[in-house]
Amino acid sequence: MPVPASVLYPPFNIVRLSHVEYRVTDIERSRAFYVDTLGLQVTDENSETIYLRAMEERGHHCIILRRADTANVGYLSFKLFDEPDLEKAAAYFTAKGQPVEWVDRPFQGRTLRTCDLHGIPLEFYVKMDRLPWIHQNYNLYNGVKPLRIDHFNMFSPDVDASVAFYNDIGFRTTEYTEDAETGKCWAAWMHRKGGVHDVAFTNGTGPRLHHTAFWVPTPLNIIDLLDLMATTGWIDSIERGPGRHGISNAFFLYIRDPDLNRIEIYCSDYQTVDPDHEPIKWDLRDPQRQTLWGAPAPRSWFEEGSVFDGVNLQESALKAQPIIAP
Amino acid sequence: MPVPASVLYPPFNIVRLSHVEYRVTDIERSRAFYVDTLGLQVTDENSETIYLRAMEERGHHCIILRRADTANVGYLSFKLFDEPDLEKAAAYFTAKGQPVEWVDRPFQGRTLRTCDLHGIPLEFYVKMDRLPWIHQNYNLYNGVKPLRIDHFNMFSPDVDASVAFYNDIGFRTTEYTEDAETGKCWAAWMHRKGGVHDVAFTNGTGPRLHHTAFWVPTPLNIIDLLDLMATTGWIDSIERGPGRHGISNAFFLYIRDPDLNRIEIYCSDYQTVDPDHEPIKWDLRDPQRQTLWGAPAPRSWFEEGSVFDGVNLQESALKAQPIIAP
Amino acid sequence: MPVPASVLYPPFNIVRLSHVEYRVTDIERSRAFYVDTLGLQVTDENSETIYLRAMEERGHHCIILRRADTANVGYLSFKLFDEPDLEKAAAYFTAKGQPVEWVDRPFQGRTLRTCDLHGIPLEFYVKMDRLPWIHQNYNLYNGVKPLRIDHFNMFSPDVDASVAFYNDIGFRTTEYTEDAETGKCWAAWMHRKGGVHDVAFTNGTGPRLHHTAFWVPTPLNIIDLLDLMATTGWIDSIERGPGRHGISNAFFLYIRDPDLNRIEIYCSDYQTVDPDHEPIKWDLRDPQRQTLWGAPAPRSWFEEGSVFDGVNLQESALKAQPIIAP
Amino acid sequence: MPVPASVLYPPFNIVRLSHVEYRVTDIERSRAFYVDTLGLQVTDENSETIYLRAMEERGHHCIILRRADTANVGYLSFKLFDEPDLEKAAAYFTAKGQPVEWVDRPFQGRTLRTCDLHGIPLEFYVKMDRLPWIHQNYNLYNGVKPLRIDHFNMFSPDVDASVAFYNDIGFRTTEYTEDAETGKCWAAWMHRKGGVHDVAFTNGTGPRLHHTAFWVPTPLNIIDLLDLMATTGWIDSIERGPGRHGISNAFFLYIRDPDLNRIEIYCSDYQTVDPDHEPIKWDLRDPQRQTLWGAPAPRSWFEEGSVFDGVNLQESALKAQPIIAP
Repeated sequence: MPVPASVLYPPFNIVRLSHVEYRVTDIERSRAFYVDTLGLQVTDENSETIYLRAMEERGHHCIILRRADTANVGYLSFKLFDEPDLEKAAAYFTAKGQPVEWVDRPFQGRTLRTCDLHGIPLEFYVKMDRLPWIHQNYNLYNGVKPLRIDHFNMFSPDVDASVAFYNDIGFRTTEYTEDAETGKCWAAWMHRKGGVHDVAFTNGTGPRLHHTAFWVPTPLNIIDLLDLMATTGWIDSIERGPGRHGISNAFFLYIRDPDLNRIEIYCSDYQTVDPDHEPIKWDLRDPQRQTLWGAPAPRSWFEEGSVFDGVNLQESALKAQPIIAP
Repeated sequence: MPVPASVLYPPFNIVRLSHVEYRVTDIERSRAFYVDTLGLQVTDENSETIYLRAMEERGHHCIILRRADTANVGYLSFKLFDEPDLEKAAAYFTAKGQPVEWVDRPFQGRTLRTCDLHGIPLEFYVKMDRLPWIHQNYNLYNGVKPLRIDHFNMFSPDVDASVAFYNDIGFRTTEYTEDAETGKCWAAWMHRKGGVHDVAFTNGTGPRLHHTAFWVPTPLNIIDLLDLMATTGWIDSIERGPGRHGISNAFFLYIRDPDLNRIEIYCSDYQTVDPDHEPIKWDLRDPQRQTLWGAPAPRSWFEEGSVFDGVNLQESALKAQPIIAP
Repeated sequence: MPVPASVLYPPFNIVRLSHVEYRVTDIERSRAFYVDTLGLQVTDENSETIYLRAMEERGHHCIILRRADTANVGYLSFKLFDEPDLEKAAAYFTAKGQPVEWVDRPFQGRTLRTCDLHGIPLEFYVKMDRLPWIHQNYNLYNGVKPLRIDHFNMFSPDVDASVAFYNDIGFRTTEYTEDAETGKCWAAWMHRKGGVHDVAFTNGTGPRLHHTAFWVPTPLNIIDLLDLMATTGWIDSIERGPGRHGISNAFFLYIRDPDLNRIEIYCSDYQTVDPDHEPIKWDLRDPQRQTLWGAPAPRSWFEEGSVFDGVNLQESALKAQPIIAP
Repeated sequence: MPVPASVLYPPFNIVRLSHVEYRVTDIERSRAFYVDTLGLQVTDENSETIYLRAMEERGHHCIILRRADTANVGYLSFKLFDEPDLEKAAAYFTAKGQPVEWVDRPFQGRTLRTCDLHGIPLEFYVKMDRLPWIHQNYNLYNGVKPLRIDHFNMFSPDVDASVAFYNDIGFRTTEYTEDAETGKCWAAWMHRKGGVHDVAFTNGTGPRLHHTAFWVPTPLNIIDLLDLMATTGWIDSIERGPGRHGISNAFFLYIRDPDLNRIEIYCSDYQTVDPDHEPIKWDLRDPQRQTLWGAPAPRSWFEEGSVFDGVNLQESALKAQPIIAP
């Protein structure tokens, strides 16, 4: 997989994924999930909206919960490096023929809204309110003790096209799955911030958000969360794990929020800042790419995802995901 | 579940489970599993037999691997408190009508051989060669870093009868599963040494050995073993886990040796030395007794076990184990 | 070190250490330490007394905090096996010339009060109120997530005499430190419940309680507690650790409660149920017996301890503890 | 602490620290330390030189051990983003009046050699041989299971001047200690790769290398290494720890190689990729900046460091480091 020049010298500088807006149907129940169970910290809330951050984050929020009649995902947001990058981004997407608008978002500066090739709503900003650090306020730690948002994973009806789109704006592929029969890319993990991924795409009806992931330091955090969820009424929200992916070497747990949005809790990751960091290629027929060891994933994990507000779905032209049935 | 007087004042004093003899068909392959992969220490070996101990054990062996044409289990062995207990045991089993003989076993003193109600070969001894302690020889630690043998788990065609038999010789029930429809005991965990169990019984065609368990201190030992097995050719030997049982609160992993004998790696346990320690009762219909959280067990885990050398099988009169299918 | 017959066949059957009464000068501050910081669970409280248990314990209490004008230790309590053991114990101590009385203690049955050779107040009982198990109530876990009380450690002005006294009532030595110059026992670890110790004695002005220990499963529990204490105003209460003792292989932390009573948080332990379990002998000059690795202990750790209410101190005839100064 | 424009828009693009050359007097003994004890992997060796990498690294080496008559540090090496950056770096240092030469180094492309303001030999390259990934070769993991080189820490005779020099080439300060009395910067942590630091400077006679650090995922890796070193003849090589620094929140261990070069094993770190990530300021009088909890550092840790080959030392004009004596 050759690295396009745009990955090394992108048209504008995306620093990292920043946050996601979930439109939720029962905000109190969502609060119980994200705050009381996962341990995210509330940074602002009113009857309509709750802003959350993880323990090492200094930016104001990494998740926004917004009350809505129908559950879906509002948008994915990314942080840019500097003010000129905002202008470059606006010019870039306009030239590409994507819709572009400037929107007001509380707690952050000027924000550009556009969408990707399949319609995923993307927002870009440079400045967000910075909060006092709470990394060493150990009395606040609870739940899974989440340290930071790590990545978004999405279903794409055409992963090759998604990879090209995100390559063009500087995302570099670190690992990918190829269907040897067709030569098509089945899934790809792409980063900006120097880890395995900020965004990932898997073949399937889309665009849909497969999951948002949070980083924790050790598998014991995940085991603590499982014990807590299993004994406080959240057992049906545990979907898959714990286990280790071959891809990314991640020790993982997948859980579902009250609207069935999927959250991954994730540890292990590796440094990918070298510009000549070679992507790892996996074969679609290799079951260890999905699960290095341990139980197979349930069907829901392969099939279910969150739709984006107002975005139409397209089916993939590729065959269905080969489910490794238990 | 009332505690019979024999549990408090048994006819002879069993200290703990001691060791198991596995009759194996490819002793080199078994060595690769138990020594190179699990990390048990060889204390004696020749072309026919390998003796193994875990890291904190001072006794000569907790597993004997013996070359055989057909794979099965030779016997289960238990340590008695003092020499008079051997005589009392011989008298007890003789009075009960069980077969009794004195056998010679290397590295240990006078040994009594008998069998339980369903024919499981049981051996009892008082003295075994004591070896230098290697608990702090950290350069020897590898694999899962097993600290000690913990328990035997068996299929019984009549768990109520097994519980009665082992109650009579001093084993106390710590947890059990009851079939509310029939009032029958479906499974029971019974101890001598002050933890959750030395022996356990589950309803099923038997007698068969479901597994032998080793104790490790943290889930991370188990995750290390999974990573090792998954990348050194042992992935098909991983059967179930990691997960947590509701029963016993154990964090577990089940693996299969080259002859398909099942080994559990186990952490968490709790102290049960109080004579008024109340057993915990679980309902057969409660899925969390099997798996507090996480993936369901594969069918093999419910159905497969190791036969004892020369012992006939009986079917259980109870309905089949309710498999919680994935 | 030969094992006296009384260890194998004691005059009465002590099951395990049970609880300690601390007489505290600021009960609210003590509550903040034991409940809000360590994470022990309140089982009963009023303005004068707080009863606490650890997470896996079914007995009503392992620590009693009692309001007092002067901080000291009320007594150490032990659980006996059965009612006849209470009578045997009363007869035994009476015959030995120790003071014997029957006292009323809430939440437990008939209680015998006596003292050891140096005056340490000892209490014995058979029955204590049993509470619902909370081992799997993971939402209650906090602080260091203490699982159970593990042992008492005491300064003795004559360790050889203390060992003889406790040998006589069935405590078995698992490890000990000998002063090669004098042949005297400098320190000894002695158990009833099948681990490294229920009680330990170290040479020094006594009798004084050096510490009470709680068992946790992994070093990460201890690191979590250190982070919490260091950032919630308890940093001066951290005395020593984390580190590993050569003796007992314990990973340890020593902290001080508001009255300077010392609490050890402890993980690692090993099974000692074999009646022929050989004690490990350490040389007083071996610095690794104290600290297998890591920083030396502060002077306070060698010198300070809690006095028992109304008990006179005696100096040891042996030279002062050789402090391995940093 | 204002962020200079050169941090956001540096004259050339340094990706990360890359490797260090240690000139060692007993290469077999050094091999026993780095390979057999720490667990680094040999990627090339002959009688004069050993090349090592950590488990997740794809580049050929992160440490070079070179046989020498006198122990010291050859140079510190950094990876640049692209070929033009090499030319820009050469032009930059030439313009600054620093010595510049092109040197040949095995296993890597064209290499620029210069030095910093105090004479620390610095090398820059773009391409190094890339090796097959061994991140999931779990059978190779041993010792502390080091995942990657993390940072260099140096004594500087003028930290303010060092910070200015490294700011000019794009290093951003993440945390620093200020002497409130003098307004001088006492110590600073500076990054390129998005973590707490690639390089750090502390006031003292210099330039000297205080330590090179390796990243591991959990404190348990560090405890395993301590147990191993303490029981395999390396106990005198343990200098400080385990503990947690207030600064960087690092859980740390400091050990010394056979030539007394100091190695830190380090876990915890946090993401610092935001260009508006505010540095954390610590007061020189705050003892928790050094040790959030736990034992004070020994004098050697404050005073000893490795000299660079052929580089003269200068004393700092500031007062001596305030040692928090135990």
